[in-house]
Amino acid sequence: MSTSPPLPPGGSALDDRSSGRAVRLAARQGQLSTHTSGLAREQVQANLAILPAALAGDFLRFCQRNPKPCPLLAVSEPGQYLLDELGEDLDIRTDVPRYRVWRQGELVAEPTDLRAHWRDDLVTFALGCSFSFEHGLLAAGIPLRHVQQGRNVAMYRTHIATRPAGPFHGPMVVSMRPMKAADAIRAVQITARVPEVHGAPIHLGDPALIGIHDLSRPDYGDAVEVLPDELPVFWACGVTPQSAIATARPEFCITHAPGHMLVTDRLNRQLGLG
Amino acid sequence: MSTSPPLPPGGSALDDRSSGRAVRLAARQGQLSTHTSGLAREQVQANLAILPAALAGDFLRFCQRNPKPCPLLAVSEPGQYLLDELGEDLDIRTDVPRYRVWRQGELVAEPTDLRAHWRDDLVTFALGCSFSFEHGLLAAGIPLRHVQQGRNVAMYRTHIATRPAGPFHGPMVVSMRPMKAADAIRAVQITARVPEVHGAPIHLGDPALIGIHDLSRPDYGDAVEVLPDELPVFWACGVTPQSAIATARPEFCITHAPGHMLVTDRLNRQLGLG
Repeated sequence: MSTSPPLPPGGSALDDRSSGRAVRLAARQGQLSTHTSGLAREQVQANLAILPAALAGDFLRFCQRNPKPCPLLAVSEPGQYLLDELGEDLDIRTDVPRYRVWRQGELVAEPTDLRAHWRDDLVTFALGCSFSFEHGLLAAGIPLRHVQQGRNVAMYRTHIATRPAGPFHGPMVVSMRPMKAADAIRAVQITARVPEVHGAPIHLGDPALIGIHDLSRPDYGDAVEVLPDELPVFWACGVTPQSAIATARPEFCITHAPGHMLVTDRLNRQLGLG
Repeated sequence: MSTSPPLPPGGSALDDRSSGRAVRLAARQGQLSTHTSGLAREQVQANLAILPAALAGDFLRFCQRNPKPCPLLAVSEPGQYLLDELGEDLDIRTDVPRYRVWRQGELVAEPTDLRAHWRDDLVTFALGCSFSFEHGLLAAGIPLRHVQQGRNVAMYRTHIATRPAGPFHGPMVVSMRPMKAADAIRAVQITARVPEVHGAPIHLGDPALIGIHDLSRPDYGDAVEVLPDELPVFWACGVTPQSAIATARPEFCITHAPGHMLVTDRLNRQLGLG
């Protein structure tokens, strides 16, 4: 769940080529249990969903059928917790600052370490996150009001149905960023190049056309003003699969805590961003 | 001046690989003096401006400074009338169905042949035209209302100033196509790839923000309705340089008659369209 924006590029101890691993090690050693927003700014961060193998096929099909809200970066084998594909020495049980553990759709724990909860049938899904494309937009000089104001991005349920798979279904959730038209046109071009992190917007202009009736009351995150010379621009959001999981009420699942993302070794600029 | 739309792809005697030359020969032989809309649909058509060498440097600089409304496909040497660069056996004096000849900004003739008007100091400018990107939009399944209704595209003067060069200056003229948001987002992606034919839109949404106060009263072309679930999408238009030339009132110049374009041998798909 991408609830906090990245900071603009700048130097810090955690902001070099090795900083993905540094963030993961800090989380593993209990030295980091906060948001990852602004950390390892050059690295791709990911939404996390961990499901029992019995449900993994359905969820994989749900992601395949809804690639804009659910852009899959990686899927593990059942029980596999070392994900070399995403980062050196990456252990999914320990390397995220905070997790959420759910049973029958109820939140039962928010641990900083999964080793006590791990099962041999668990399949990990890493999904692209808007932190990466926001990095690209900021690098292109497009201002993002929620970043300027230090707020979470505004997110809304729409009346656009996802394509269901097994027990997974529900409305598409979108994030909204207000932009001048010229910036919106550039933002389409920039984000269209990166389907790994939600791709091009799914809507812009009149919110009512996608079932949003009051921009000042987001379903998740914080409202930001849309000025008279701006358009609201809407991207498919990684909250969509989390919402579909909540609706499915699986007997067991694990997600990251909002804003506490999995930091990978992949670089935003490998996606062509920033 | 792109005043008529292309027809959707389909077969005809003038619609194969050689049809650019066939249209030019028909014009040369006096068998064709009508619009080129719908002819040689696979070929790039061009706006034409022919100016005395004394003004050509200024106009070239004007195009360089305003590439979105004035995308240069080719510039001749002074007096050169055979433009191999644009097409086999292409003679700019005879191969356009109808021309307009201007003196001191006044229209003095609309010939179908320039040989009686030709001068050794004339420099020809061929500029990209929205026919090509409309071909790409239609090929992508994006409906264009003015095409469906057989009208000219609606064009408007904006309050966006072009960057002046010598005597050439004036407002940017834009063409407008109403689209649903999802189509507008795809249209940005498609047209952004083709700077040779105006590139990405320069605006979408509220027309007043670019100085257009009544969409039902275009300055050129025909009005089309914008439905409640649509946005007006605005592209820089090849009428802009014609308008700048009219404002400059050069002692002598030649343009194509509206809709009677120069048909080249270049293919829209060489630009990546359709």
